[in-house]
Amino acid sequence: MSELKNDRFLKALLREPVDVTPVWMMRQAGRYLPEYRATREKAGSFMNLCMNPELACEVTLQPLERYPLDAAILFSDILTIPDAMGLGLYFSTGEGPKFERPVQTEAAVKALGVPDPEGELKYVMDAVRTIRRELDGRVPLIGFSGSPWTLATYMVEGGSTKEYSKVKGMLYDRPDLMHHLLNVTAQSVISYLNAQVAAGAQALMIFDTWGGMLTPRDYKEFSLRYMQQIVDGLTREAEGRKVPVILFTKGGGQWLEAMADTGCDGLGVDWTLDIGDARKRVGDRVALQGNMDPSVLYASPDRIREEVQTILASYGQGSGHVFNLGHGIHQFVNPEHAGAFIDAVHEFSKPYHQ
Amino acid sequence: MSELKNDRFLKALLREPVDVTPVWMMRQAGRYLPEYRATREKAGSFMNLCMNPELACEVTLQPLERYPLDAAILFSDILTIPDAMGLGLYFSTGEGPKFERPVQTEAAVKALGVPDPEGELKYVMDAVRTIRRELDGRVPLIGFSGSPWTLATYMVEGGSTKEYSKVKGMLYDRPDLMHHLLNVTAQSVISYLNAQVAAGAQALMIFDTWGGMLTPRDYKEFSLRYMQQIVDGLTREAEGRKVPVILFTKGGGQWLEAMADTGCDGLGVDWTLDIGDARKRVGDRVALQGNMDPSVLYASPDRIREEVQTILASYGQGSGHVFNLGHGIHQFVNPEHAGAFIDAVHEFSKPYHQ
Repeated sequence: MSELKNDRFLKALLREPVDVTPVWMMRQAGRYLPEYRATREKAGSFMNLCMNPELACEVTLQPLERYPLDAAILFSDILTIPDAMGLGLYFSTGEGPKFERPVQTEAAVKALGVPDPEGELKYVMDAVRTIRRELDGRVPLIGFSGSPWTLATYMVEGGSTKEYSKVKGMLYDRPDLMHHLLNVTAQSVISYLNAQVAAGAQALMIFDTWGGMLTPRDYKEFSLRYMQQIVDGLTREAEGRKVPVILFTKGGGQWLEAMADTGCDGLGVDWTLDIGDARKRVGDRVALQGNMDPSVLYASPDRIREEVQTILASYGQGSGHVFNLGHGIHQFVNPEHAGAFIDAVHEFSKPYHQ
Repeated sequence: MSELKNDRFLKALLREPVDVTPVWMMRQAGRYLPEYRATREKAGSFMNLCMNPELACEVTLQPLERYPLDAAILFSDILTIPDAMGLGLYFSTGEGPKFERPVQTEAAVKALGVPDPEGELKYVMDAVRTIRRELDGRVPLIGFSGSPWTLATYMVEGGSTKEYSKVKGMLYDRPDLMHHLLNVTAQSVISYLNAQVAAGAQALMIFDTWGGMLTPRDYKEFSLRYMQQIVDGLTREAEGRKVPVILFTKGGGQWLEAMADTGCDGLGVDWTLDIGDARKRVGDRVALQGNMDPSVLYASPDRIREEVQTILASYGQGSGHVFNLGHGIHQFVNPEHAGAFIDAVHEFSKPYHQ
């Protein structure tokens, strides 16, 4: 593998000195970019794009051609694991992801097995290998997975939900079954992420999109507990470097201390908390990644620069901050505004690293 | 007006002794009840139902016929004020509320005026008067409004949104315009709620559904500031009793202290925080209303009773707690489960008031 030319992102996650604050954007390879939309068109469908390693590599690299980003993230879907478990993932227009065979009975839960990452999920590992080769050491590559609770939500509901009736019905009435489901899913995530590291991922992120919909008691029992299992089961070193792990629970700002206790390296934070307050709470135990409101990108470049400065000042002096949005970039954002954001992070963060 | 036979709800909000913890449910007059669906059918449309005082009264009282609830809440829509401002509210199936004339230009913002609560909004006041008469002192009647920020979100976007591109575009780029809009809206809410009190409302609640989508800085500047204006401008006494005011920011658990500082009487809390922790944070400054996850109602009555006991134990001894769900009751809940919930609150709370 070629030597890493820009390791700011990895260093910041380990709270080692950097020259400027590194920055990337969740969903940076996405619909706001015309070149993404062109490749997506060529692929015919979203899943074709995910399952074709050459095209997945193409869209992963697109934002790096435009912007001086400090990390690349594997282009893939959050639901590859349940699909590989046999649930039959498909996308229906306007309704998001769906499963042909949701997991709603004891028999269905007990039938779940851990998929082979170099079997049914080989297309993901091929994408990781292709991207690493094409990146040629420019920036590190982030691998990722959904959290067990987030995957379970889609698996039980059979798609997106606003009410969580089925998955919470199972959680509240059949906690034994829910724990079985989460356990198999956590084992699958461990095997999936370790295979991504073996294939070339240099950092890992776990997206807990729906953990924030739980009570504090249930969050600890049904989401965090399984993220802890994952952190404990991951390969934490590869190619002679530490492989940092980031946990991100959307809406989980109240539980940062407990999340930091897992032994992960970084925590994603959304924009509903002040990043300086978050830093005080977690101290020097973990790095923080975030947390500009993605809607600020609808404002003028001047206003975007102002917001970047506010967040940098709130985090304050020293390493341990990876700048990002607090959620994925929206599809109707002007790509030039994203550029203004990224440039502003590098430009205005220098004084905080002197 | 006939004498109030059950004033537990009002007493608990003022942290005065009660025999058992009072309970009501957000959206208790709603689609989960077959009798509601029948009246809604008869009305022809949702807005017809809101605009007909006799039918609005009918659905307001329906849950009280079924359950020993400790409060009634005016049946109305959150968007009556912008409709009365001339925005043209309508409902399109499956897409929720929409406005024919959203407020997206400086001219549109500057043209906004405060509607007359006994003019364009007289149908709401007539509903309040009818309900008060028909309630005949059984339980107190809660009046309500959306918060200025929440109303502004719908007014600028023209309907529901996931991305808040237009309203946050205005907030970030034209804060002067946003403040103008919020100020007119706050004045309208004050006049609207005071008219509800004059018509017979005995407590008031402000629903800040979208405040939790803001950064902590923006929450204080664009949402809380205008709820403060409202609290300061409200009639706080009527018929020789205090009229308690409850503020509820969905997802606002991180800002309880600042909300309590407004001088309101109670805070609504959703299920993402532990109500015992919330009580420690606000001390004896305000009462708390909440906070069972509405999805618990999908579980068995036994599990529902268990959850009620957990929340009662977390709040602990003494008054100052109005039991409620952490959000509106979902439409697919079995009405018998709602009954089990309400009975459990009264049954299990006795020891906490001895």
